[in-house]
Amino acid sequence: MTDRPTPIRPPYVAVIGDGDPSGPDAHRILEWAEEVGQLLARAGAVVITGGLGGVMRAASRGALMSGGETIGILPGADHSAANEFVRTPIATGLGVGRNLVVVTSADAVVAIGGRHGTLSEIGLALRMGRHVVTLSSWRLESDHRMGGPRVHRASGPRDAVAIALRLAGEGALQPG
Amino acid sequence: MTDRPTPIRPPYVAVIGDGDPSGPDAHRILEWAEEVGQLLARAGAVVITGGLGGVMRAASRGALMSGGETIGILPGADHSAANEFVRTPIATGLGVGRNLVVVTSADAVVAIGGRHGTLSEIGLALRMGRHVVTLSSWRLESDHRMGGPRVHRASGPRDAVAIALRLAGEGALQPG
Amino acid sequence: MTDRPTPIRPPYVAVIGDGDPSGPDAHRILEWAEEVGQLLARAGAVVITGGLGGVMRAASRGALMSGGETIGILPGADHSAANEFVRTPIATGLGVGRNLVVVTSADAVVAIGGRHGTLSEIGLALRMGRHVVTLSSWRLESDHRMGGPRVHRASGPRDAVAIALRLAGEGALQPG
Amino acid sequence: MTDRPTPIRPPYVAVIGDGDPSGPDAHRILEWAEEVGQLLARAGAVVITGGLGGVMRAASRGALMSGGETIGILPGADHSAANEFVRTPIATGLGVGRNLVVVTSADAVVAIGGRHGTLSEIGLALRMGRHVVTLSSWRLESDHRMGGPRVHRASGPRDAVAIALRLAGEGALQPG
Repeated sequence: MTDRPTPIRPPYVAVIGDGDPSGPDAHRILEWAEEVGQLLARAGAVVITGGLGGVMRAASRGALMSGGETIGILPGADHSAANEFVRTPIATGLGVGRNLVVVTSADAVVAIGGRHGTLSEIGLALRMGRHVVTLSSWRLESDHRMGGPRVHRASGPRDAVAIALRLAGEGALQPG
Repeated sequence: MTDRPTPIRPPYVAVIGDGDPSGPDAHRILEWAEEVGQLLARAGAVVITGGLGGVMRAASRGALMSGGETIGILPGADHSAANEFVRTPIATGLGVGRNLVVVTSADAVVAIGGRHGTLSEIGLALRMGRHVVTLSSWRLESDHRMGGPRVHRASGPRDAVAIALRLAGEGALQPG
Repeated sequence: MTDRPTPIRPPYVAVIGDGDPSGPDAHRILEWAEEVGQLLARAGAVVITGGLGGVMRAASRGALMSGGETIGILPGADHSAANEFVRTPIATGLGVGRNLVVVTSADAVVAIGGRHGTLSEIGLALRMGRHVVTLSSWRLESDHRMGGPRVHRASGPRDAVAIALRLAGEGALQPG
Repeated sequence: MTDRPTPIRPPYVAVIGDGDPSGPDAHRILEWAEEVGQLLARAGAVVITGGLGGVMRAASRGALMSGGETIGILPGADHSAANEFVRTPIATGLGVGRNLVVVTSADAVVAIGGRHGTLSEIGLALRMGRHVVTLSSWRLESDHRMGGPRVHRASGPRDAVAIALRLAGEGALQPG
């Protein structure tokens, strides 16, 4: 038996956002998340989410129903907390500490809408050297110049996926 | 488009052990790990490891070469640190903190040989309600009675896999 | 021997920012961090930082030299990595995962300048229900309304400390 | 203002064990924990625990009532979950992930009784290069030789504290 070479790994893209979106644009946010999941799956990318509801479920649904692979990085210890469109649940037992795993395990991150948890994931993604694409999400400005990964604002799902796939293909930067 | 039911999840079994075994029985340990990986894959189980060398690589090799699915939960932020037999690398950025994720993400754990890192994973597995099967690994005794998950000593790879699959099928206990 | 009641806990305030600030305003950032540390210590607050250099060291220096208590939550496993103004080093071994502990262990957070690591801590603080005061740091805007903790922009060190102490006194909110 | 040299840091000793001991020796376990806390405090050591009940509370009580310093590394996000003998609570928000912080933040570890959580902390301590002293706790044996930190069985509280202080003084080993 000879060692078989590693198969080429597909791009891993995390889709992050609110677990229970509300307000006037909640419906649009969920539609966008599902479309982002679909487009990522059709392009051959693996979709990573936090495994629960809202944006996480919609993105996983879009990807799995389009024949894609979906990974859910769960906060608790119980696999069955994953939504029904997660094919590979990873129970971490780390609580909010799992947010670091969601973004570190991806090559690029798409944030759709979102509140404080999403902001923490955007910050952690940049800290770990992952580019972030935002869609109707946080706008971030700083007085200070800095290099490394960047936040890219997308105009819609197709734009978000195109940017994310390009950035994922460039490969992750070093944490910095 | 209607919601598709979740596919039945296969058993997830973590195989833990030394990343660089040495000493007179190192060769046997690695052979056992590869055989455990093979048998788990043939039974349809997903093999989870810490994604690096030694026992982790041998178990992943056995599983992937037998057509199985392999997940590697890495300590660092770089996917490419995974051994070449990991099909799904999960980069956590958590250092030793990833040991908790390795065992929590599994339904049952097989420990083969191993030193201090393996002992920490055995303890964390039991703490999170996962049964542990040992093969030439740590022997643990306590003055105190306790319920919950248990450590099962196996006589060889076939025995280890049979016990692990039975325990994984029973489902994980609650953390306690 | 009778149980002694718990002493009233002083406010815990985390000061976060760049570990190695550069650029035209680096000097001012460090001066502000030292003054924030001084003012917090004089008000009886405990100063928590990530324990390393730059803003973390300047804030710890200001606090310790003013007779205050300083805690440093370190990413690595080596206590001696703490700067010399940390009285109580806590080595976590969690890498970037320690950012969650820095903010969760505080009642309120002051961000001074800062890059991606600081942004991740601001997001995690809000996620864990801690109010954040910013001083020449990130400006965050969202299309979405949300309740819970808020980001308060301060005009200078005195303003930042006054706001932080008021918010810390109100007590932390529930994670949300 | 000149930089003041770091004060010499006292030894940090973690005391770990069951949060709710039961069975015929529960009373003795708690008495031992309190005596270990007293003796550590009288020797000038800082006592670190997981901050909750049982052995954690008894060790903190012994130390605080003897004029010592007590740190509690809590699993949740709420400082007020700490027992009343913890002077410095550190809320981590990491769940069981906080076990890594409890042992990494110490120079040496004393385990008194204990169940699965304690076993996980013993393993993590050894993994992070910290020596462990056991008192009526787990007995661990391995088929494999390994260097680095060791488990030392003590005959009683005085013996446990004497060994722990000696090992803490030797300094922590590198994680391995």
